[in-house]
Amino acid sequence: MIVVCLPRLPRVAVCGGTHGNELSGVYLVRELLKAEKKVMEKEEEEPLSVLMVLSNPRAMQQCRRYVDTDLNRCFTHAKLNGPIPDDAPYEIIRSRELNATLGPKGNPEAVDLVCDLHNTTANMGLCFIAYSDCDWICMHIFRHLQASTNNVPMRYIHFDVSNKESYSLDSVGKHGFAMEIGPQPHGVVRSNIYTAMKVGVQHMLDWVRIFNSGTIFEGGCVDVFTMIKHIDYPRDSETRNITAAIHPQVQDRDFCLLHPEDPLFQTFSGETLRYKGNEPLYPFFINECAYYEKGIALSLARKRRVMIPAIRVQTEQQQQANKQEFASEEEE
Amino acid sequence: MIVVCLPRLPRVAVCGGTHGNELSGVYLVRELLKAEKKVMEKEEEEPLSVLMVLSNPRAMQQCRRYVDTDLNRCFTHAKLNGPIPDDAPYEIIRSRELNATLGPKGNPEAVDLVCDLHNTTANMGLCFIAYSDCDWICMHIFRHLQASTNNVPMRYIHFDVSNKESYSLDSVGKHGFAMEIGPQPHGVVRSNIYTAMKVGVQHMLDWVRIFNSGTIFEGGCVDVFTMIKHIDYPRDSETRNITAAIHPQVQDRDFCLLHPEDPLFQTFSGETLRYKGNEPLYPFFINECAYYEKGIALSLARKRRVMIPAIRVQTEQQQQANKQEFASEEEE
Repeated sequence: MIVVCLPRLPRVAVCGGTHGNELSGVYLVRELLKAEKKVMEKEEEEPLSVLMVLSNPRAMQQCRRYVDTDLNRCFTHAKLNGPIPDDAPYEIIRSRELNATLGPKGNPEAVDLVCDLHNTTANMGLCFIAYSDCDWICMHIFRHLQASTNNVPMRYIHFDVSNKESYSLDSVGKHGFAMEIGPQPHGVVRSNIYTAMKVGVQHMLDWVRIFNSGTIFEGGCVDVFTMIKHIDYPRDSETRNITAAIHPQVQDRDFCLLHPEDPLFQTFSGETLRYKGNEPLYPFFINECAYYEKGIALSLARKRRVMIPAIRVQTEQQQQANKQEFASEEEE
Repeated sequence: MIVVCLPRLPRVAVCGGTHGNELSGVYLVRELLKAEKKVMEKEEEEPLSVLMVLSNPRAMQQCRRYVDTDLNRCFTHAKLNGPIPDDAPYEIIRSRELNATLGPKGNPEAVDLVCDLHNTTANMGLCFIAYSDCDWICMHIFRHLQASTNNVPMRYIHFDVSNKESYSLDSVGKHGFAMEIGPQPHGVVRSNIYTAMKVGVQHMLDWVRIFNSGTIFEGGCVDVFTMIKHIDYPRDSETRNITAAIHPQVQDRDFCLLHPEDPLFQTFSGETLRYKGNEPLYPFFINECAYYEKGIALSLARKRRVMIPAIRVQTEQQQQANKQEFASEEEE
């Protein structure tokens, strides 16, 4: 058996409130902060450093997605490193603070893993959203969650975007993913969704501790949904108002294959509009509230099975050799 | 058989967007306005005047419940008639415009019926919400909808508030009710909820036309849910943040009897909190998004059966006599 050895993950960040009205993450991070305080009072030693972050406190306070601009689109290389005007949007300023705390992005000082907590109004169950389909850490964590929970459907979504162009908070860590759970209306907290997220985060942290302790995780396969394209609502050419809603046969059917000529929208006058693509694809983010303004009624993905290798943590010696290698690269 | 004769209803208002992020009403009123334009182009004569109103265009534009203050709390006698400062909230100004168009409230010039369209994140099906449990017009319309639709659960909710203290837009008409449909996240339009509202409004207008034409409607009974009290979320005494969500056994169970000691909340640390009332009551508006800020986790109602009489429209002579009576009252 080939076992891929990967660096230890001593620092993990769990972030909530990146979108201020996605409440599971807001209340979960608050709860974890309270629990952490109790642990610290007991002065218990924890070998894993878990950083709990409330990403957008102003948006949380107003129970809105964002104040000036979508924080979770601010973490591209260009936006993090460009000139910053005096009247910069709040989220641009906040993204640099977060990059300083959790990053800098692309730097060896960055935290090892960022898990950013999100909710969606779409019926997506629990999804990992990542920029890579070969990040064995994220994919092994995903498999661990799949094996540990049986009452929540789970999928792994891959946005094929380069590291430089990646725009979301989780891209600041060495590894990172968004944990997206729905359906839940924004501005609302539902016990079942909150609990699914809490359990997911616990399993994720458990996995990291077991990994760091030296356990070997066997290889296997993961079904990956790679985002292919977005589809917008039909709109009035003058007013740009939408003229149709998601068809009742598609609503809540995230990850159910959509075939050419299947019903897709129902206009407000009652007409059915059909999917005009050439290829059957998997819809997701169907009728996500926050995407009306982004011109996205749903996204479409292709599914394929990815084989992942067995992994284990590097030994002290391997880590040391790696560090020296990195240092000599720096010197070049 | 005793038949109560009631005045004709020549003018009806259908209002959407009173809350700018409750989208079924917004899109339905836009659709009805388009249809009206087509009818007007054909110069067809319609004996019933139906006024379509988009109540809060600024909030709609921002896809928020309101801009400065909740418009649907601005229609008390005091707020409509008090002094108005230069820096009055937008909704205070807008409420007076609407009162001028649809009212004035309490005045014989007011429209005969206001149907104000709303959505809720709660699993309430289609509800009429009214201030009276003896408004035979509203209650007969409700019975007509109940008899005409079988795929949407329907309830009649009564808020026991005096006409003077009544605060919502529908209180401006001679008769009025809110048509509240859920579950739907705010900022989202779901086809099934949109269609239920569209069909509901069509049946409502059909009923008014049939009533005006002189048809007798038989008496019968209506189950009325009278609001008794609101219950807030458990909150942190310092931060005022909520510390629990609706219990999974109560979530989505609107109008299912809640007994003393039944689970009610689940704290974010996982503890169950129970209903401490003395009397079994019917919960509704369970986990409504917009009520977090109002301190309402759910409302509780008592149910009772109300007998309603047979009704028909007054004859021309009766109407004339009524008008004279009203004029002489005015002179006194």
